[in-house]
Parts: sequence; C-alpha cells; structure tokens
Amino acid sequence: MTSKQVVYMNQGQGKTSYARNSGIQNAEQKRLKPMIEAAIADLSGSTSTSALLPTKMVVADLGCSSGPNAVALVSIAIDAIHIHCLQFLQPPPEVCVLLNDLPDNDFNTVVKSLVTLHQSNNEPIVATGIVPGSFYERLFTSGSLHLVCSSNSLHWLSKAPEDLTRNQIPAYDIDEHTRLERHPMVIEAYAQQFRKDFRSFLKFRAKELIPGGRMVVSLVGDFLSKEATCAIELPKKTPSETI
Amino acid sequence: MTSKQVVYMNQGQGKTSYARNSGIQNAEQKRLKPMIEAAIADLSGSTSTSALLPTKMVVADLGCSSGPNAVALVSIAIDAIHIHCLQFLQPPPEVCVLLNDLPDNDFNTVVKSLVTLHQSNNEPIVATGIVPGSFYERLFTSGSLHLVCSSNSLHWLSKAPEDLTRNQIPAYDIDEHTRLERHPMVIEAYAQQFRKDFRSFLKFRAKELIPGGRMVVSLVGDFLSKEATCAIELPKKTPSETI
Repeated sequence: MTSKQVVYMNQGQGKTSYARNSGIQNAEQKRLKPMIEAAIADLSGSTSTSALLPTKMVVADLGCSSGPNAVALVSIAIDAIHIHCLQFLQPPPEVCVLLNDLPDNDFNTVVKSLVTLHQSNNEPIVATGIVPGSFYERLFTSGSLHLVCSSNSLHWLSKAPEDLTRNQIPAYDIDEHTRLERHPMVIEAYAQQFRKDFRSFLKFRAKELIPGGRMVVSLVGDFLSKEATCAIELPKKTPSETI
Repeated sequence: MTSKQVVYMNQGQGKTSYARNSGIQNAEQKRLKPMIEAAIADLSGSTSTSALLPTKMVVADLGCSSGPNAVALVSIAIDAIHIHCLQFLQPPPEVCVLLNDLPDNDFNTVVKSLVTLHQSNNEPIVATGIVPGSFYERLFTSGSLHLVCSSNSLHWLSKAPEDLTRNQIPAYDIDEHTRLERHPMVIEAYAQQFRKDFRSFLKFRAKELIPGGRMVVSLVGDFLSKEATCAIELPKKTPSETI
C-alpha cells in the first residue's frame, strides 16, 4: 500500500464528513459554470446556428470525492448539453458520465449520487461510471474523452517530494526556527513535485482526450505568478497546446 | 427505492459473505474460459496467422458482484488477449475493463479487486471502471463494447412478476396445498418475466456492442428445454442474431 492510496475525504454524512464540510469547494465548482458552458459550445465545433454536438460524448470529473459535490461539475455539463441541444434543435447525444477519484474514496456513496443524477436526467445521460485511480496515471483509453473537469483536486500531489522524505524533512516542522530556515527548500521541493505531477496530468489527458477535446480545471494557486495564470487559462486551449 | 435496487450479495469477508460462499459460482466462471478465449479469437476477425485484435477493446462483466469472483471473467479475457497478442506478435491493445452490478453492490470492495488486477497486469489493461445499474436497462453508449461476459446473474429478474405481486401470491407459499395448486401459474409467471427481461437484456446489449462484438453468457436453466439450449449458444452468434 502506497501513501497515494490512502488519501481520501472523510466518508459518510457525519458532522466531520466531507459531504457536510465542502461548501467552499462547491462555490468554486459553481464558478466554473460559464467555463464548462463555453467548453460545451466549443465542442460543437462552430458558432454558426447549425452547430451540432457529437452524437456520443464522454464527460469526466477527475477527483470527484464523495457527497453532493461529486456530481456537481458533470451536472453543469449535462445541463449545458441539454440547453445547447434545445437551442440548436438537435436530438440529445448519448452522454457517458465518468467520475474519478483514488481507490479509497467512498464510491458506494458516489454510486448513490450517480443513481440520483441518472433518475433526474432521463436525457441526455445514457451511461454513468466510476473510474478509480490516480489522475497522475492513465485512466481512460486513448481519444475517448470529450470534456474533462477537475476542481480543487490538483493540489493533491502524487506523493510528498522525495528530496524531503529521503531526509525526513516534514512539510511543517513544529520547531519554528528549523521551519523558517528550511522554508525556501520545502516550498521549492513541493513546487517541483507539483510541476512534475501536473506535467503527468497533462500528458495523460492529452492522450485520453479526443482531438479538440476540452478541459476545465481549477486549482488553488498564486494568482500573481505567471505559472498559476497559465494553468487557469488551460480550458481555452486544445490538449496539444497545454503541454 | 424499488425492489431491484436492494438486491445484492452479502458484503465483506465474513463467514456468511458472498466472497467466502461463492465457490460454485467461481467453478461456473472457470467453465466459461474456453468460450471467452474463442470470443477473443473471433474478435480478431480472422483465423489467419495475421489475425489482429482491435487496438482498443472494452470488456465488461455484467453482474460482477463483489469478492474474488468480481474480476474472474475479465481476468480470463485479459489473459486471452495477452496470449493472442504474443501468438500473433501484436502490440497489446488498450483494454478497458468495466464491471457492472446493481447500485447497492459493495463497490468499495470491487474497487480494491480492480486495483489488484491493474497492478498484476501492466499490459494490456489501461482503464478500469465500474458501471452501476440494472443490466435490464441501458448501461453503456452505443457500439462501445467488444466483449460482454455474464455468469450466474441473469436468473436475477428485474422484479417479481406483476401478475403475482398484484394478487399477493408469493413465489413459495408455506401452505403446501396452495403452493402445489398455484405451482403451474407461478412457474409460468416467472418464465414470462424472464422472457421479458432477457429480451430487454439482448435488446440493450445489441445496441451497446460493436458490430461483430461477442457475448459469453451463462445462466441457470433447464438444459433439456429448447429455450435454455439456445441461450447457452448465444456466444457463437452476433448481437443482431441473438434477438
């Protein structure tokens, strides 16, 4: 068992559960609504009045967690597809909704959310599924995804930086003097691990997205730095441009 | 909540769990090995020495349950694909393995089995997933499956026959006289429900399988009757021929 397999949100519906303590994350998901709607419009391949979506579409949320937030992003995408089809008088496409998180996530709860989503949306959903695994590895077959969403998940790294673990240096040392002294090194080690992980994330999604597929990704970052701004702009780019 | 959503095997690893009481089902799964191997060979589309499998394949087990049996059929399929590729010097295809059962199945346990399967087979598996839902409804997008397996699951009907539930007639009446008197009617009602459900199963799989896709299905039945024999022969037919 590696450390990346034991990271998961608090399960269930209790006082300390993620389901009851994820309001901030949900607010961030709602902020992505216009970007997801724009991505769906982009997928129709045109801005003309005859813009049609593909007849089959696969939408995935990477790092879905459990509780009400698990289906929030894909619900926005489904609504956007539904509205787009009404607007352009297109029959609804077959939509496959896939939710991903690490294997120790509470998938039994996620399945209940998927059932509710399915029952409340007869169209355009046809298929729902769960894909357990790390989004820093391959998750889907090549060219199979139309839209990838991920909110508040990419700050979870694949592992603690090896430079630190090898020397038993914690991210937060309780001794203030040691902590302040090591601060630049610790920050740089985590930044480097993030760069490595995010590059893997983009590399694998580039393989898994269809040509012209779209990603809407939000993550915690320093908005003043150039790198963070680039990451936020990813949804506007094609997979090949993001690497 | 409908009755079809609360049917599931005993969870966990305890004395009365399905995981520890499913030896008969596992023996039946092993009996399907040559049929699954033949189906994989059929999917290469030829018996010549240059017979190649598709570069991407989706294999699904419908009614996977939980415990060690959950990945038994797909493991056989993966081994068959691996051996076929070695034999014909073909690079391994990308394989997506999907496991289905009703939403109340213990999917947290199934995910653990999928992780083990993934770790023990670097090739040819790329993607693993769980698809919750009834196999008497649509589960996958059109033309997306190459091989469907299902063992010891299709005797689970979508519901008790309405003719019986409407008149509050149980499948097994404790009063022997009443039971024997109603026996033919009860048998016929269940047979009719099976015919209806099995037709739905075939109709939806015919939509979901690729042209030339294969199904390997086993179910409890009366081997002396014509209908049961036809069902057992299904793997040799194309989806359009099975209805």
